Amino acid sequence: MSKTAITAEPGIPMIITTREFDAPRDLVFRAHTDPDLLVQWLGPRDLAMTVDRYEVRNGGTWRYVHTDTDGNAYGFHGVFHGDPSPDALVQTFEFEGAPGHVCLQTATFAERGAKTLVRTVSAFQSVADRDAMVASGMERGVHDSGERLAELLGRLRSS
Amino acid sequence: MSKTAITAEPGIPMIITTREFDAPRDLVFRAHTDPDLLVQWLGPRDLAMTVDRYEVRNGGTWRYVHTDTDGNAYGFHGVFHGDPSPDALVQTFEFEGAPGHVCLQTATFAERGAKTLVRTVSAFQSVADRDAMVASGMERGVHDSGERLAELLGRLRSS
Repeated sequence: MSKTAITAEPGIPMIITTREFDAPRDLVFRAHTDPDLLVQWLGPRDLAMTVDRYEVRNGGTWRYVHTDTDGNAYGFHGVFHGDPSPDALVQTFEFEGAPGHVCLQTATFAERGAKTLVRTVSAFQSVADRDAMVASGMERGVHDSGERLAELLGRLRSS
Repeated sequence: MSKTAITAEPGIPMIITTREFDAPRDLVFRAHTDPDLLVQWLGPRDLAMTVDRYEVRNGGTWRYVHTDTDGNAYGFHGVFHGDPSPDALVQTFEFEGAPGHVCLQTATFAERGAKTLVRTVSAFQSVADRDAMVASGMERGVHDSGERLAELLGRLRSS
């Protein structure tokens, strides 16, 4: 099975992730934009996710909360920029535990025959912010998300 | 007179500008957040500026238009992120002539005795986007803006 590749070069305030999914582009895009699907795969496996709002349109806002088994809640929010499409899903991203630290995410969905390559570029305000994100253990969340999305897409395709 | 320093390192998708102004921090911040002041300094000297909206609050949106002497209009818009303060004025920035290309700007205002150092970090989605911004001639706009803001602050302090 394909794994998510994570690139974070020294001195460059970005994180780039890529992963190929065995599903058509429209379905993979829908899994990123339909909150009923999103909650089934986004984030580490041991956290529960609830979506407060998810307005997938130019200028729309979103907010979701991840809750661990001890009941600790972690809120995130942001704003969509531009008309969301598989060519570019652009949004800002803030962890509410670190106010003022914003990142700008651009996801693109490329057809590879019957498969889809998802590439996400996260641009940070500083290398320090990027390094803090890496140090926070985001890698586990990214890998879990990729695995869970692959599983969800498999279920959607066979249903 | 101090000039604006512009840093755009190869391979790093950022532009950093710094300039010291001979005015107190609160006044310099106000010149960045009061649209009646903003239109007096932001942009190249030969363009007229009108502000459609400028909602300086967490999640507030802004839009302004620069018009040249031939009547060509250039629209820009974005969203403020976090509570705006001299410690951090964070906003997204889009030129409407290049939809989907967003940059994330963080301005900080530091007291230097009676003067104020303004530092702006612009984070782009790619090095190509950053290079396109540099190639667009933004340098003239940045330098004009700095000169014009210094002049405005001088007028405000002597009035």
